[in-house]
Parts: sequence; structure tokens; C-alpha cells
Amino acid sequence: MKLTYPAILLNFKSYKEAAGNRGLELAKTAERVASQTGVIVAVCPSIVEMAKFVQNVSIPVLSQHCDPYEPGPFTGAVVAEHLKEIGVAGSLLNHSEKRLKLSDISAAITRLRGVGLDTVVCADDLAAAAGAAALEPSAVAVEPPELIGSGISVSTAKPEVVAGAVKTVKAVKPNVHVICGAGVSSAEDVRKAVALGSEGVLLSSAYVKSRNPEQLLLELCKALLV
Amino acid sequence: MKLTYPAILLNFKSYKEAAGNRGLELAKTAERVASQTGVIVAVCPSIVEMAKFVQNVSIPVLSQHCDPYEPGPFTGAVVAEHLKEIGVAGSLLNHSEKRLKLSDISAAITRLRGVGLDTVVCADDLAAAAGAAALEPSAVAVEPPELIGSGISVSTAKPEVVAGAVKTVKAVKPNVHVICGAGVSSAEDVRKAVALGSEGVLLSSAYVKSRNPEQLLLELCKALLV
Amino acid sequence: MKLTYPAILLNFKSYKEAAGNRGLELAKTAERVASQTGVIVAVCPSIVEMAKFVQNVSIPVLSQHCDPYEPGPFTGAVVAEHLKEIGVAGSLLNHSEKRLKLSDISAAITRLRGVGLDTVVCADDLAAAAGAAALEPSAVAVEPPELIGSGISVSTAKPEVVAGAVKTVKAVKPNVHVICGAGVSSAEDVRKAVALGSEGVLLSSAYVKSRNPEQLLLELCKALLV
Amino acid sequence: MKLTYPAILLNFKSYKEAAGNRGLELAKTAERVASQTGVIVAVCPSIVEMAKFVQNVSIPVLSQHCDPYEPGPFTGAVVAEHLKEIGVAGSLLNHSEKRLKLSDISAAITRLRGVGLDTVVCADDLAAAAGAAALEPSAVAVEPPELIGSGISVSTAKPEVVAGAVKTVKAVKPNVHVICGAGVSSAEDVRKAVALGSEGVLLSSAYVKSRNPEQLLLELCKALLV
Repeated sequence: MKLTYPAILLNFKSYKEAAGNRGLELAKTAERVASQTGVIVAVCPSIVEMAKFVQNVSIPVLSQHCDPYEPGPFTGAVVAEHLKEIGVAGSLLNHSEKRLKLSDISAAITRLRGVGLDTVVCADDLAAAAGAAALEPSAVAVEPPELIGSGISVSTAKPEVVAGAVKTVKAVKPNVHVICGAGVSSAEDVRKAVALGSEGVLLSSAYVKSRNPEQLLLELCKALLV
Repeated sequence: MKLTYPAILLNFKSYKEAAGNRGLELAKTAERVASQTGVIVAVCPSIVEMAKFVQNVSIPVLSQHCDPYEPGPFTGAVVAEHLKEIGVAGSLLNHSEKRLKLSDISAAITRLRGVGLDTVVCADDLAAAAGAAALEPSAVAVEPPELIGSGISVSTAKPEVVAGAVKTVKAVKPNVHVICGAGVSSAEDVRKAVALGSEGVLLSSAYVKSRNPEQLLLELCKALLV
Repeated sequence: MKLTYPAILLNFKSYKEAAGNRGLELAKTAERVASQTGVIVAVCPSIVEMAKFVQNVSIPVLSQHCDPYEPGPFTGAVVAEHLKEIGVAGSLLNHSEKRLKLSDISAAITRLRGVGLDTVVCADDLAAAAGAAALEPSAVAVEPPELIGSGISVSTAKPEVVAGAVKTVKAVKPNVHVICGAGVSSAEDVRKAVALGSEGVLLSSAYVKSRNPEQLLLELCKALLV
Repeated sequence: MKLTYPAILLNFKSYKEAAGNRGLELAKTAERVASQTGVIVAVCPSIVEMAKFVQNVSIPVLSQHCDPYEPGPFTGAVVAEHLKEIGVAGSLLNHSEKRLKLSDISAAITRLRGVGLDTVVCADDLAAAAGAAALEPSAVAVEPPELIGSGISVSTAKPEVVAGAVKTVKAVKPNVHVICGAGVSSAEDVRKAVALGSEGVLLSSAYVKSRNPEQLLLELCKALLV
């Protein structure tokens, strides 16, 4: 299932609130809100439950990480062909909590693209966003690491990073989508992100730890539609 | 489901022959042979399908890798508590294809043990086996990397490594189990390993790529029982 | 001492032939040939002898690596300010034998540039060259890893990679210099590289292990001047 | 120049206060105090100035890090044979700011020992100290990372870690020396460490940033002699 933009990406990381049945519930909630609003919502569950999530929800499931290897003798690896086989839509790459070598990002993009999967490369700042864009992923997600989990949205605290990333990425590769993340937790954050040119948002703790994730996601989706 | 020794550990790595339904089939075959022979057989499926495997087989499932983190904001990680929650029995650590820092092996063992899971630390040679044993995992698996996938068994090519690992590990920590791996592919390899003091074997390509995995595993299990 | 282009970069790696006095002799030979021909030649000595090399030769000395840290509590690190203080001209970054994370390349470039030092980012292929260029180093050195140390020059075996890197890098950032390396060992290799648009070459074993390094370098320099 | 114990190890890390001539001055001060008191004092200068330090002081110089490679095509590496050739006495390994894989610590110890150099493996806690001891380095330096640079000495804040490391290491390998570090900054800290069985101390910022390093080191040396 291909990802299209604008989109909301929900990263479950390794949060206990998103493990096991609680995670499945959060994914099903996302599926419901996506269906209700028509907004593209993707979930990035823990890698140890990925196959189970794909079997249980019809919205796009992204891997939180992908290694640059082909299928073979690679213990503990996540490989593109395997993601494809189990029905995953694509992968985040180079999240600030799982940073990768330049050559591995490049190789992983090549392998994922080769089997028709999406690639969303995270970048800390404008220079890294430009570098990531040059590798021609499906999308670049700009996320200043110091704002991750802070509750202070990148679109409010650092609007110049969002606008700058859009400009920089499109200058390098016009077809690469740009989304933003870090601290995104309200409809207003999404509206500001969109106003700055962002084609969606990547969020995590705000959704995963929300007392009312359905209500929150509904508001975020509506904000994206405006 | 706790692992006891002697045991046969089947590492599926990232082989395409062990992905998706083919992997499930290989795991069910292992379950059948284990039940038939009474030998403890554990499988280490691709991490992206782990939860699905646990749901589908009743033999112990081990992770191919575990990170040293607690549940939380760790994108792309495998954490002990999550493995526990989905029913995994334990984890391989420091496989030569997924080497870890000393401090991360130590921290991962502490976390896994803390939630009651097994730990099998791989080691290339006697020095590393001693170092691994000192960290008090459930077991040390000695595997000379140059023999992995070679078809030439460590128990034949380097019997002194198997015997030496048994002696070294038990001298450091008498309660730590010792198994061996690399090139193990026949009943004779298993018999030699057991004769050298090994409490089981770790194998991968020989099983995963076998034309008749059921027959092969049956022979290995019988050899372990002798 | 700033590096200008075209230039010949001599990477001493960790070769025993370039350690201690043998390394100093190779550097003094390079100094002599540079002076004689007017060609810019830089040496990249082992990092453990860097300060000594700077004291002993007047040609630019580049570090083989630089970490992204500021001066401080970083054991075993190479930091930009320290390189500056001891008189080093700049640093290679992301050599295929010392690959770096995208974010670390970006941060190291920022720090090195901040203290006025040069940055030469190595890249395996066109995609990585584009990614590296987007980070705005002084130069990108394209080096297909499979040709390194092979004696078969990139400019002969993969002319399309050299020409492609020049085109790609200049399209992303026109001010970034492009050099090439891997297998470069003769005047003819240099001539071909220059004809393909390369602004110099990066070589290692061909010089370090040459029976007559002075004669070889003289020929390479003359080829660069043509 | 072999290191004997008890000893005081001074780690200059990448502090700007220990770069260039300021670092040489700190090393010469250490040499003077060592000569005056008869205490063994070793310095670990920045790796980019190592050869220069060896040429300028007669006390043991240790590398802050060593890679597991043989001399050869390894860009940006620190190799044992090269350290030997330039007159370095040995190397710290696995400092908490430069953590290494278990297999790399093991391989680096083997290489350094093979050329007659000393090895001091750092360990965060008792489990890691046991693991490090099993690899048979010259010494294990136990350093709880949370106390590094804190000014609160491990021997005061965590005496059980120092005493426990001595007991644990000697139980695994009686010939391996044990020193401690993290927060060591006064004669009292050294006295406590010695009373707990430590055969010396490893310190850094307290010396490097001292307003009177000579006076401080004199007091530490006297405390070690008591």
C-alpha cells in the first residue's frame, strides 16, 4: 500500500503504551480516523510486531528502520525484500534515535525503491535535509532532535527550519516530499506546518501517550485538510 | 517459555527461505520434530515477524537481537520488556553478524534477565567466550565466524575451540551453558559437539536451506539424545 | 595552509610503509615534488603522528578523519579545533574505511568550516556524492570501494562514475570541488581523471608502496598539469 | 616503557586545556612530579599529538584508544604496531566515551599484547569489569560513567564498586591490575581508592583543568604512596 501526501505518520517507537494489544488498538484507531476523514495516516509499529500489524490494519504500515542488506546471512537485520513480502509500505530511515551512515541510507533507499517501497529519511537540520534529499527518497522528514518529545512543535519553535527544509529539499530534488516532526501535538501545530509548506507531520509520544488518541488524531487530520 | 539445555537453536537470520510462510513452515516443522523427539528446539525468526511466530508455534522463540534500552523513545529498537510481552523466550546477543559493544551486551543481559528471559551470547573465540561468560548470560554460543555458513562444522574443524569454550566458560561461571555453532549440518557434527561438552548447537543455513529440513532436524535431534 | 585545486591527495592510511620515519620520508618526498612542479600535493598521515608531520613539512597536512565533537570530554576523538591548533589544513571525512553517519558528516563539516579548515568528503557512488555535496564540503572525493587498492583506476574502469560525480556534485553545489580516487597509480590514470572533469586525485597504496615514490609522484604531477 | 602499578593515569581526552603546548606543559609537569615522588604517572594525550608527546616526555604515554586492525588499508585508524613504533607504552580501551564491541576489545588486546604494549580496559560496572578481566588485559579501570567529570569520586560515592571490581577482577584473572576512576580529584579520593584495593587511579578534568596541576598531582602521588 503506497503512501501518498499529505500524510500523518505515527511513530510508535519502543513505547510500552504502543506494545502488544495497546499498540494494535492505537493502529486500529488510526485506521478508523483515516477512513472517517479521508486523510492518509500511516503507522510505524515496533519492528518486532510488524507482520502482525500488517495483518490487522488496512492503513499503510511503515518500518521504523531498514538495513542496507539483501536477504541472506544477516542476523538481527531488517531487509527490504522481507518488508515487501509481509506487506509493509516502506520505512523510516535515519531517525535521530537510529542514525545511519550516509552509505547505508543510500543503499537502503536503493533496495527499498527497488522493491517498490516508500522511504522517509529523517534529518536533523537543513544541511542534513539537503543531503538526504540528494539521495532521492520518497520523502524527507525534518526533525530538530532537541524538540522531539518536548511538546513544543517544530512548526512553532523553528518555523524557519520547516520552511527552509521545504525550500532546500525541493531545490535539490523537486519530487521529494517534505514533512516535519518533533513536538507536534495539536491541530494548530499541523496547521502551521502546512502553512510553511510541509506535506504532513510525523508524531509519536503525543499520539501514543494521549488520553484520547482518537479525538487528537481527528483534530490533526481535520487540520491537515484545511 | 523457558529454554533448557541441551537444545538446538535454529537461527533464521534474514534468509529469504525463512521469510513469510516459508519461515512459519520451517518453525512448524521444528515444533513437530521437537514434539516427536522430546528434544528442546528453539527458533530465531526474523525480528519483523517475531510476534506472528510466537502466536503460531509452541516451541521457544528467541529474538535474533536485543537492544539495551528500556521501553521508551527508541525508534527501530528491540527491547526486553516488549519481547516478554509478546511471548518471546529470550534473545541471541552479539552474533558475529550483529556485534555489540561490551557495555550493551552487559546492559541487555541485565534487562532481559530482569524480565525473566533467556540470553545466549555469541562469541568468536575463547577470549570472547570468557568475556561473555563473565557477564552471566544463560548460555554462551561459541562460533568461529570463518566457519559460519561453510558447511564445515566447528566440532570437526576446531574441536579445541568447543572443548576450550566449555572449560573456559565453566571456569568463569559454572552455571552458564555452552553451545557451539558454525558449519553444523549433520548428525555427526552434533555428536562431536556433544562429545566435546557442548550442551547443544546453533545452526542456520543448513536447516533453512535444507531440501528436507524435517529429516535433517530429526537426525540432529536424535544425535543430541545419544 | 589552505588546499586549492587541482590537487593530489596522498592518503597514508595505516600502512606500515608510511609509519614513523618512513612516513616522514614519504611526506618530504611529496613536499619536494610539489615544490619542483608547482602542483598542490597534500598528505594524510596516520592520525597518531599528525602533529609531528605538520612540524616537519610545509605542504598541507590533512587528517584522515574528524569527529563531530567540540573540544571537551571525548576520549579518543579527533576534533576540529585541535586540528586547527596544531596546523592541520583540513580533514578527509567518510572514507569507505571510516564511514560516518550522515549527521556526523554534517556536524564535522560545520565544525571544520567554522575554524577555517578544508573538508573532503568521500563518496562511494553518485547518490552518495550528491548527498555529500549537499552538505557543502570543500570537496567530494568519489571512490568506488571495490577499486580501492586494486591497481585498476576509477578513471579507466568507471569513467562514467567520475564524469557523473562531476556533473552531479556541480548540479547540487557548483562551488564544491570534485576529485576521484580508487586504483589511481599512473600518469595515464591522472590524465583520464582530469579529462573527465576531476580536479585532482586521491591515492594511497600506489604511492605508499611504490619502489620509487618520487618518480611516480613526479609523473602524476606532470599529468595533472597538462 | 612498561607501565607498573600502582600508577596514576592522566587522560587528556579532547580538552582544549590539554591541546598543543598546554598539553605538553601538563605532560612535563606530570614527568616532573613522577620523578620527584617516584610514583608511576602516565599520560594519555590527544591521539593527534601522540608522537610529539612521546618525543618530549620520558614518562609512559598511553593512547586513548586503539583499533583492532593490523597495519594496512585502514583510514583514520590507530593500530598497535604503529603505537609501538612511535614509542607509546600501551592504550586505554573501551573508555565510556569511546565504547568498543566485545570482539574489538578482545582483538585489540591480542594485537597490543603481541607487540608488548599495555592494555587498560575501562568498564562501567562490576559485570563489565568481569567481562573485561576475562579478556586478560594488563589492567581494568572501573569507572561509573555518571560520576565522570562530576567532582564526586567513585571511591567516596560508590566504594562498593571499587572494592567489588577488585574482588571480581582478581577472581576472574588474579594477574590483572585494577584501578578506578570517575570524579577523582583529591588526595583523599586516592587514599580511599587505595584502601579499597585499587592499584591506582585514572583521572582527567581534575588535572587538566586544575589551576595548579603540579600541586594537585604532588598531593595525589603522595596519597598513593601512603
